[in-house]
Amino acid sequence: MTRIGIVGATGYTGAELLRILAAHPQAEIAAVTSRQADGQRVDEVFPQLRGHVNARFQRPDSGALSDCEIVFTATPHGAAMVLAPELLRAGVRLIDLSADFRLRDPAVFEQWYGQRHASPDLLGEAVYGLPERYRAALGDARLVAAPGCYPTAVQLGLMPLLEDGACDTRGLIADCKSGVSGAGREARVGSLFSEVADSFKSYAAGGHRHHPEIVQELAAMAGGDVELCFVPHLVPMVRGIHATLYGRLTGNADPQALFEARYRDEAFIDVLPPGSHPETRSVRASNHCRIAIHRPGNGERVVVLAAIDNLVKGAAGQAVQCMNTMLGLPETAGLMQLPTAP
Amino acid sequence: MTRIGIVGATGYTGAELLRILAAHPQAEIAAVTSRQADGQRVDEVFPQLRGHVNARFQRPDSGALSDCEIVFTATPHGAAMVLAPELLRAGVRLIDLSADFRLRDPAVFEQWYGQRHASPDLLGEAVYGLPERYRAALGDARLVAAPGCYPTAVQLGLMPLLEDGACDTRGLIADCKSGVSGAGREARVGSLFSEVADSFKSYAAGGHRHHPEIVQELAAMAGGDVELCFVPHLVPMVRGIHATLYGRLTGNADPQALFEARYRDEAFIDVLPPGSHPETRSVRASNHCRIAIHRPGNGERVVVLAAIDNLVKGAAGQAVQCMNTMLGLPETAGLMQLPTAP
Amino acid sequence: MTRIGIVGATGYTGAELLRILAAHPQAEIAAVTSRQADGQRVDEVFPQLRGHVNARFQRPDSGALSDCEIVFTATPHGAAMVLAPELLRAGVRLIDLSADFRLRDPAVFEQWYGQRHASPDLLGEAVYGLPERYRAALGDARLVAAPGCYPTAVQLGLMPLLEDGACDTRGLIADCKSGVSGAGREARVGSLFSEVADSFKSYAAGGHRHHPEIVQELAAMAGGDVELCFVPHLVPMVRGIHATLYGRLTGNADPQALFEARYRDEAFIDVLPPGSHPETRSVRASNHCRIAIHRPGNGERVVVLAAIDNLVKGAAGQAVQCMNTMLGLPETAGLMQLPTAP
Amino acid sequence: MTRIGIVGATGYTGAELLRILAAHPQAEIAAVTSRQADGQRVDEVFPQLRGHVNARFQRPDSGALSDCEIVFTATPHGAAMVLAPELLRAGVRLIDLSADFRLRDPAVFEQWYGQRHASPDLLGEAVYGLPERYRAALGDARLVAAPGCYPTAVQLGLMPLLEDGACDTRGLIADCKSGVSGAGREARVGSLFSEVADSFKSYAAGGHRHHPEIVQELAAMAGGDVELCFVPHLVPMVRGIHATLYGRLTGNADPQALFEARYRDEAFIDVLPPGSHPETRSVRASNHCRIAIHRPGNGERVVVLAAIDNLVKGAAGQAVQCMNTMLGLPETAGLMQLPTAP
Repeated sequence: MTRIGIVGATGYTGAELLRILAAHPQAEIAAVTSRQADGQRVDEVFPQLRGHVNARFQRPDSGALSDCEIVFTATPHGAAMVLAPELLRAGVRLIDLSADFRLRDPAVFEQWYGQRHASPDLLGEAVYGLPERYRAALGDARLVAAPGCYPTAVQLGLMPLLEDGACDTRGLIADCKSGVSGAGREARVGSLFSEVADSFKSYAAGGHRHHPEIVQELAAMAGGDVELCFVPHLVPMVRGIHATLYGRLTGNADPQALFEARYRDEAFIDVLPPGSHPETRSVRASNHCRIAIHRPGNGERVVVLAAIDNLVKGAAGQAVQCMNTMLGLPETAGLMQLPTAP
Repeated sequence: MTRIGIVGATGYTGAELLRILAAHPQAEIAAVTSRQADGQRVDEVFPQLRGHVNARFQRPDSGALSDCEIVFTATPHGAAMVLAPELLRAGVRLIDLSADFRLRDPAVFEQWYGQRHASPDLLGEAVYGLPERYRAALGDARLVAAPGCYPTAVQLGLMPLLEDGACDTRGLIADCKSGVSGAGREARVGSLFSEVADSFKSYAAGGHRHHPEIVQELAAMAGGDVELCFVPHLVPMVRGIHATLYGRLTGNADPQALFEARYRDEAFIDVLPPGSHPETRSVRASNHCRIAIHRPGNGERVVVLAAIDNLVKGAAGQAVQCMNTMLGLPETAGLMQLPTAP
Repeated sequence: MTRIGIVGATGYTGAELLRILAAHPQAEIAAVTSRQADGQRVDEVFPQLRGHVNARFQRPDSGALSDCEIVFTATPHGAAMVLAPELLRAGVRLIDLSADFRLRDPAVFEQWYGQRHASPDLLGEAVYGLPERYRAALGDARLVAAPGCYPTAVQLGLMPLLEDGACDTRGLIADCKSGVSGAGREARVGSLFSEVADSFKSYAAGGHRHHPEIVQELAAMAGGDVELCFVPHLVPMVRGIHATLYGRLTGNADPQALFEARYRDEAFIDVLPPGSHPETRSVRASNHCRIAIHRPGNGERVVVLAAIDNLVKGAAGQAVQCMNTMLGLPETAGLMQLPTAP
Repeated sequence: MTRIGIVGATGYTGAELLRILAAHPQAEIAAVTSRQADGQRVDEVFPQLRGHVNARFQRPDSGALSDCEIVFTATPHGAAMVLAPELLRAGVRLIDLSADFRLRDPAVFEQWYGQRHASPDLLGEAVYGLPERYRAALGDARLVAAPGCYPTAVQLGLMPLLEDGACDTRGLIADCKSGVSGAGREARVGSLFSEVADSFKSYAAGGHRHHPEIVQELAAMAGGDVELCFVPHLVPMVRGIHATLYGRLTGNADPQALFEARYRDEAFIDVLPPGSHPETRSVRASNHCRIAIHRPGNGERVVVLAAIDNLVKGAAGQAVQCMNTMLGLPETAGLMQLPTAP
């Protein structure tokens, strides 16, 4: 059993890590920290965990984290980059679910997150935790930057096209839709039930923090600049991300065949048959990403539909998938729970 | 008072016509027809109308329709084109809310709706019921083809750009999201609460019936061909359409100023201040369309956000707006109810 | 036109007052106050009001309130009882939508609301704003205590039985269900979309603040003590209250006939035909209360179902109904908007 | 591995059986039948099962069912009682999830289900599949009648009180609320998203089919007649049942202690600490029942709150729990998946 620590476990990502790790065959939840809930039983805050998680929240500085082999940081942006150096020195391997180590360039981080980066020297070492692309590097990683939820859906939906050069790198559009849990468990008027239920809207249409992260990774796939317009939207549902991606095919490659070949050996990527439309509920509470490819009127235009659960493949599940690879376990360990639908 | 008939009033569009017309200062609901509900009280089917609508459904062939001045057909596609000739002969003016008279070319109708057009000779006479564009022609119209819900949102969101030539007519994208009431009140597994709640998906990504209607009208605005990719999505909410529209600016025009100028005198079009994001609930149960314009990174790319209530500005409200114009009434008569939010 | 002031207008009750009063034929919105939103345009906070409300929030102590004929206080409990004396001295008539003046006994107020009552001397003067019961007293009232949302539904559902003595006053049960807007527009984790969507729960099953208010009024109807068990529940919907009320018939009176007789002249109370089940959406955004009466197995047990919109008949609409009576207007003035369904 | 058959697997109960059994360590899904979907891949109808269930629907009369050791019938009422004799003769053990074998008295069945019982001779043999009460009898059972969803919640919530005689058997009230999936996957207007979303109502307040089933079992617990008023309600959520149960304590027993003692050894029953309120989401997709007990004002009145997932503990999960007991497996085999919340 591997001793696991979770920092910032009172949010939705933390709760999802607890749900997954409590049933993981090789994981032992050794420390769960939260400043605000210090001393409280975990299952008081999350009654759904009663009988499965027998732990209390403790303070992050209690020393318990240093005794863990792997620590997940599910904290607001800015916290992990402060914690990381000490934990790494203590021999802990860190999987950060915040934005702190995703951007290669600290100046870009500072521009979008409004704060100086506390550990810029670690940015070079951090492995971007998208196993479908960086699997090899994850094996020895000490520090993993788990991707954001939007970036995961967009990258998985464009990767086969960009890696293959099958698609124009200009004029890409990512029209993305997220469930409300993506906004976190903080008390905010904008996330109230009566504000978002039975309604739909876009937000940050002029520029969103996930844009530079997506562009950084798409450019790496394409081996050159990409031009992407990314518009996020809020859907009155709890979980799920649906990315509708628009590109232009440049060659004669059959995109359906391209996707099937690229993802043939991926346990969590499901390329649907032609003509399909993935529903977010078909991946609810699961680590799968389902993808469908359309070519309206059989023209140059390609439309890719990608659906994930933002809390699982878009956060906690993907982080555990990284952990499995880091530990040399089967990548699917603890992650084969079937989706909950309806 | 104008004597009004409603055909096919057991659906959501019919119910919404009843809601609006029951409070209209110049309308008298004289005939409400439905084959299946013949003889039943209207407020038995729609208890929300108790105390406001005192009528019974009757058969459409009862003769009562011929005594009306205006008849709305809120029927499935294919019914109004059969009814129209006789009603027009009887001197009735017809506002059809189905697709029967929207497409100029009967061959296109037949391709997308899978049936021969029963009254192709009337297609030339039918006025497309978007008052913001065809107001002048509505005054004398005998036959009005009220636009579909998606087409209304897309057209209002692109009209200022296309009429002005401010936007490339190639590469247009309309990523549209609809509430479930757009699928109608028929019993279908795909519209069940447990199938669509807490989930999100696209549908008809390879081609949707509203595509030719939208393209026909956008081309008329642009004065030439347009290339449009239109992808509809289903949102777990009852009412509302949100269109996210992507174009490329070709000149130096300020799109915000363009929209404000074009819609300055329109009672129902609300151009939001820069930086805004319209929520569908802000137009719930109202005939308004709210629009916001974004230019991410101040580049060529323009993103227009347009929100309407699919049952009001996307159906019943717009039809009543047409009626007001046909009757020489103030265009806002009976349509100034405030949106219901939250 | 009557000059109207609204205090605390950034909450849902305030927004609903604005929606109703903006379309009221005799009301002029003269002052809208909020400490936190001071100086902001009202339609910036509530975009659904764009074009209908042209006002800015100002501070409550700006003096503008004293120039009003009627002031509504839609404030958290504890604020109106401080404001009231000064406004009354200035000749303003006050309609309070908080709990401050509902309970006759200041000790009971202090027990449930955890604060000393600031104006106990006004409690005797305050008229309880349920027009269906206290219409006569409202005409001259200077100070009206508009009932809470649960109390309105429970009282309207039990009044005919208790006034008539047709029902045992012991063993009454009010199993009530509320939409989430009843919890207000404050940022609280418990009201987040991701906390309440797709779930159902009871709360305060051991005792809720509305219990003493309900009991006080039911006892007045019955002319003696009543024993009531009241359990509130939270429904994943925005608006609506549904009360399921259980009593035991004591005589031979036909409860259906009793309700129909009692409410024959009430514009807003709709007694449904036998066998009906009111849906909350059938009163959405309307001031109506719909009621159905059942006697399972034709025994002594009577089950009354009562549905209202918590923000309208349970708050803002009822307050305006009181205002109409106070001003000698038709009770329905500005309140006949049809329900929004679906 | 035990060979399993599922009859009527295109409904929600069938889909849930597939979800649970596909991950069950001792189950092999050998036959999945459906008349209407004959020949179709199961994961075409339920895309969430892609990669987990590799089977096609076949006709129920294909002979495949006879080769199973256990067959689940998730059919509409009336089908299992026709199938049962032949399957039992073939040596198959049957777990019926419909109402066919729940009622001891065929006359009561005929009264409520409007059809003659096809196998009244089997009623005596059928074991009522509530393991918490009939565990011993399940071991050898050939035919199990899995309880309905409402009856499960009500029985688990009243069992400790009635078995112990701690509660008056007269005047019991079960005010129950169900998610929409309880209405099944048939295309019906009343189950459409636009009919039930953002609304709440009661139904069958005058008498519901589950009433006689509940009363039969409560009477067995009490050892005598019980008088129960049962009113079901429809909640705009997909899964979940919440029973609010009202009784009157007759002795001095502490109900909290009574519940804790009765359920101490039950793996799936979670008695919450005093003052709690179970949310349905805390048991979503899990076989647990969470229960809280309240005594408002510390009087005679006792209020029990019980929450289950209607598709799991109220249907498929409970049926698998029965199967485990029938096969001598640990009762929790395949049923320890953690709840999905948020």
